[in-house]
Amino acid sequence: MKENSFILKGNICYAGTKDRLAIAEGGYLVCVQGRSCGVFPVLPEKYRGLPVTDYQSCLIIPGLVDLHTHGPQYPFRGLGMDLELLEWLETHTFPEESRYEELAYARRAYGMFAEDLKASATTRAVVFGTIHVPASILLMELLEAAGIKAFVGKVNMDQNCTEQLREQDAEKALADTRQWLADTMGSFQNVRPILTPRFAPTCSGPLLEGLGELQREYGLPVQSHLSENLSEIDWVKELFPWSGCYGEVYEHYGLFGGEALTVMAHCVHSTEPEVELLRQKGVYVAHCPQSNINLSSGIAPIRRYLDKGIRVGLGTDLAGGAAMSMFRCMADAIGASKLYWRLVDQDSRPLTMEEAFYLATKGGGAFFGQVGSFEEGYELDALVLDDTGIRTTRALGTRERLERYIYLAEEGGRLAGKYVAGQEIFRQNICG
Amino acid sequence: MKENSFILKGNICYAGTKDRLAIAEGGYLVCVQGRSCGVFPVLPEKYRGLPVTDYQSCLIIPGLVDLHTHGPQYPFRGLGMDLELLEWLETHTFPEESRYEELAYARRAYGMFAEDLKASATTRAVVFGTIHVPASILLMELLEAAGIKAFVGKVNMDQNCTEQLREQDAEKALADTRQWLADTMGSFQNVRPILTPRFAPTCSGPLLEGLGELQREYGLPVQSHLSENLSEIDWVKELFPWSGCYGEVYEHYGLFGGEALTVMAHCVHSTEPEVELLRQKGVYVAHCPQSNINLSSGIAPIRRYLDKGIRVGLGTDLAGGAAMSMFRCMADAIGASKLYWRLVDQDSRPLTMEEAFYLATKGGGAFFGQVGSFEEGYELDALVLDDTGIRTTRALGTRERLERYIYLAEEGGRLAGKYVAGQEIFRQNICG
Repeated sequence: MKENSFILKGNICYAGTKDRLAIAEGGYLVCVQGRSCGVFPVLPEKYRGLPVTDYQSCLIIPGLVDLHTHGPQYPFRGLGMDLELLEWLETHTFPEESRYEELAYARRAYGMFAEDLKASATTRAVVFGTIHVPASILLMELLEAAGIKAFVGKVNMDQNCTEQLREQDAEKALADTRQWLADTMGSFQNVRPILTPRFAPTCSGPLLEGLGELQREYGLPVQSHLSENLSEIDWVKELFPWSGCYGEVYEHYGLFGGEALTVMAHCVHSTEPEVELLRQKGVYVAHCPQSNINLSSGIAPIRRYLDKGIRVGLGTDLAGGAAMSMFRCMADAIGASKLYWRLVDQDSRPLTMEEAFYLATKGGGAFFGQVGSFEEGYELDALVLDDTGIRTTRALGTRERLERYIYLAEEGGRLAGKYVAGQEIFRQNICG
Repeated sequence: MKENSFILKGNICYAGTKDRLAIAEGGYLVCVQGRSCGVFPVLPEKYRGLPVTDYQSCLIIPGLVDLHTHGPQYPFRGLGMDLELLEWLETHTFPEESRYEELAYARRAYGMFAEDLKASATTRAVVFGTIHVPASILLMELLEAAGIKAFVGKVNMDQNCTEQLREQDAEKALADTRQWLADTMGSFQNVRPILTPRFAPTCSGPLLEGLGELQREYGLPVQSHLSENLSEIDWVKELFPWSGCYGEVYEHYGLFGGEALTVMAHCVHSTEPEVELLRQKGVYVAHCPQSNINLSSGIAPIRRYLDKGIRVGLGTDLAGGAAMSMFRCMADAIGASKLYWRLVDQDSRPLTMEEAFYLATKGGGAFFGQVGSFEEGYELDALVLDDTGIRTTRALGTRERLERYIYLAEEGGRLAGKYVAGQEIFRQNICG
């Protein structure tokens, strides 16, 4: 028997296209060497030798991809939510992040984050660390051990922030980043480094220039924040007066798509030229609806991005977002889009459940390659959902059960199994 | 020892005023015959004979009041969320509600609702039933047995709805309602009937007139819906062309505050004259943020209502709202107010955590009398919160722990105890 080769049986559901679910009730999901061979109503002869786990009436869906989150902010999720972005950064975020200089603290805090992420519905994540090299390496080790596939970034910031979190200068920042890359590139099976300028205001020109060089030298991916908050955008314009839009700052230094696989969180207030730049450069937008609500940032125009063909996924943005649950994130994305439609633009119809599900699986999954679907050739990330605790008198179809699970995962839902790239992360007693 | 007399020890927190928490860490909450005698840092001599339950580091807060929910819609919560109000009513609500004609079905469905409500953080609720008298009585019996204090309404509707849910005519509707009142008034310890015209469009003039007479005859409370959705408001204007605003329809028939204790759900799009009428008549507004988002209704201007001195509480509005959790409801109220501030009215500052907590306890509690606080004389509804499952590296104060619980009740929170009017509903092993 081949490694990571098995069959899962159950009510299988994944995003066929953006608008349509593919459903196989009582179907067989075949995994060979960590990749999907497809979903079958009847098991083909050639796979009969593989072990079958029968999850009976449970739902089986692709793993969920958190395209933007902050590991070090986990300890204060749900706190300080009455503040706006820049005040919240000063009061909560920067003091917390400065604690990760101490490796013992990082071990305790990142340990909680990695354990809880392992138990969650998230199979892949794109994660901010802090400026600290040892702590960032530790975070990578812990996620590796948890079996979560992740891009993890040692953060770069050398200006406009509390001294404790400021890298000494661009030169030192870049030397540290090189050291970190040397220590981590190719060292893990699940985890890879990603260049992580925190956001334009905290990065000097020389730092951004050096990061652009590193990107080209090693072909590294990039993550940062973009156009989250109106005061932030004004600040960027002040700091980089030559830029036509916020995104142009990153683009100027070669940190905005094109050859560089790039994800930008938020894009709540992107101008028309910035939206066009996102599209041209193939930059991924990480839509973080709960964070954008908590920090009073607004609502990102996701319908517009989808219509333009921009690449979009969903993110929790811990701890701007309080919830780690990507189900909650889907429900929030739908809700936010309804309010955008009602309050901002009556031509921008809300996201459907199918679209939100697509964004949380295949949409964000594409950042990792062939991820987020059960189509043949995709890496096999799967969740087994036991919804018997979300009680009802009705006999429900698979689409209805998925919708209900998205809204009510936290009120009676239970993960009965989790697989990442064909590795079983955990399996619990199955539902009746 | 007196009945329902005891002491709870722990980190006690309640809404002192709308803007300020009252906190007693390691305090004593004294209950005598179901009512609070106050909170004390040191136990007064005269209470030393009462039994003490030491909940150690747990939080102890007042019970949460759900000022608007629909019992019969529980089976389809989280379904059909891509629809707007009137379409959703036709597709999901009316077909489901027609099933409660069959008492065996009602027993199964209401059994789930009552059990899950008992296990939830809700101690008091104002509940819609259906038009069916036997099922509505059954709902009252089940809530009585669960120990939840509730107003429950047999629904009235005699026009503009599916035939299966239409009462034959006003005369028959009023006769049934009289029968129901005769069977239930004074029959329960926890549960009382409330007049429940579904909403103006489904009630004929003669029906509303008869309900107004019943209100005056028995001094009954009233619940209904008001200005939830723009199409609904247009419809009311068509049906009652003489009305200056939607609320005036109820007011015309004596079903809108004044002598009649009244709660109106939603008030998302109330006009200035309607807002003034709400204030003058002392009508309670049940703010249901999640439902208003799910059904794309919009965001109610709660800051404006509070500034005007209008009475406001929070409601889940199952199944327009999917979540039964009143913690979630508080977080949604804060989030919705932030988006209202950002997108609609920059002078309308967001609700604070303290205000949302006030609304969910004392604000809605006032509908039940002296409820929702631990001040002396209040009926003692209490929740014991174990937040050890919401992990953090920080040592947190009581205010911070409450904020975190509001945002993360469903990601690691656990109810360790629940009391309603001095009755223990359940108690679990306490936290460490």
